[in-house]
Amino acid sequence: MLAYDGTGYAGWQVQPDAVTVQGLVSAAARTLLGLDSRIVGASRTDAGVHALGQVASLTTGAALEPAGILGALNAELPPDIRVLAVTEAHQGFDARHAAVGKRYTYLVDNAPIADPLLRRYAWHVRRPLDVEAMRRALAHLRGRHDFSAFCAAPGRGTSPVCVVRAAHLVCRKRRLGILLSADRFLHHMMRNVVGSLVAVGRGTRPAEWVADVLASRDRTRAGPTAPPHGLTLLRVLYERVGC
Amino acid sequence: MLAYDGTGYAGWQVQPDAVTVQGLVSAAARTLLGLDSRIVGASRTDAGVHALGQVASLTTGAALEPAGILGALNAELPPDIRVLAVTEAHQGFDARHAAVGKRYTYLVDNAPIADPLLRRYAWHVRRPLDVEAMRRALAHLRGRHDFSAFCAAPGRGTSPVCVVRAAHLVCRKRRLGILLSADRFLHHMMRNVVGSLVAVGRGTRPAEWVADVLASRDRTRAGPTAPPHGLTLLRVLYERVGC
Repeated sequence: MLAYDGTGYAGWQVQPDAVTVQGLVSAAARTLLGLDSRIVGASRTDAGVHALGQVASLTTGAALEPAGILGALNAELPPDIRVLAVTEAHQGFDARHAAVGKRYTYLVDNAPIADPLLRRYAWHVRRPLDVEAMRRALAHLRGRHDFSAFCAAPGRGTSPVCVVRAAHLVCRKRRLGILLSADRFLHHMMRNVVGSLVAVGRGTRPAEWVADVLASRDRTRAGPTAPPHGLTLLRVLYERVGC
Repeated sequence: MLAYDGTGYAGWQVQPDAVTVQGLVSAAARTLLGLDSRIVGASRTDAGVHALGQVASLTTGAALEPAGILGALNAELPPDIRVLAVTEAHQGFDARHAAVGKRYTYLVDNAPIADPLLRRYAWHVRRPLDVEAMRRALAHLRGRHDFSAFCAAPGRGTSPVCVVRAAHLVCRKRRLGILLSADRFLHHMMRNVVGSLVAVGRGTRPAEWVADVLASRDRTRAGPTAPPHGLTLLRVLYERVGC
């Protein structure tokens, strides 16, 4: 399990000409465990998105105890990427395909002036948002739905149907935390949901509009994509296997 | 009232060859209101220390509405320094001398692996701390005492006696928040108190040792100075005047 501050990275997924989290973790694993080491992350977080509970599977021919791998990887990695735990998984375990759910949280700083201590981790929306309207809008997303309207680019051959098991909005001192737990998340889904909720909170759209957008399955109808830096991957869920 | 992320600054106080918060705020005020503008901060926070409620008095000959000053200063300042509020004070108001109290909080990340999202705002102490012992130690500091033992450099002609009105330690998910409210704070006092509390939490010293150190008034007996980046100035208190 890994945590990282995504501010300085071009996302999780390895890219030829950009510094990514997977790129650095893979390089550290190769230095430590040999060139055949392979890292697969459960979630391909976008550039600027953070993680407190990313899960990655490490495949290697080297024989080293989990505790030794944990310490050695953290010694190689920069302080904005930390390996939190290493456990041995069964042969063939793949962090991405074995995941049965994920939890994301999105933080909105709704104070009139942005909190400088939150500027890397929250989207600052200056105008006071109608939190109750946002909660009503969020309620429409619970359950099994086709989320095509909130998906940036449909996956090849993958279903747009997701089961949202929990959807909450907590508000304290004009900071809004939006939490979504689902069996899967489509590309940009969380950020598009938040962008649409903020449109409702601003009074641009009524709460019921979110239900209409969802039913339309038309991406052009949803709100704008919320910026990446408010988003944090909280947890990846498995069926009592792997991590 | 100002908030800032102290990570990139050599503290509050203006210095000839370093970037400081007061330096940037003064420069912005001079650009906006003329060269006679003068800024005095209530607390001279150290390099790396943050603020959520620093108070500064701005003396200027220019005539501009508070709301206009707020917007214009924030437009000039970098995003890690924000002016939260501007109100008009009576003639001669000095944010430093008029202050009747301050509140600081210190954050300790006591998880086995440092949280990368907290690394700028918390001191990572890996070994599990004995929170109850730390609370007992903290209790000795409540009330009126001579804090010379926790003071880095005694001020010229200033009293080392402070009245600690509140001292709390909150702990959640191995994150410790230490809050101190006092009529005044001596140089490095909060960081020396935290360093001593952590020595108690580590089991190096018993809780009662803090009472002995306090009574000794001897700086060489207290624990090490905690690093600056865990410290945040929360609030400056006034007698219903100024901010």
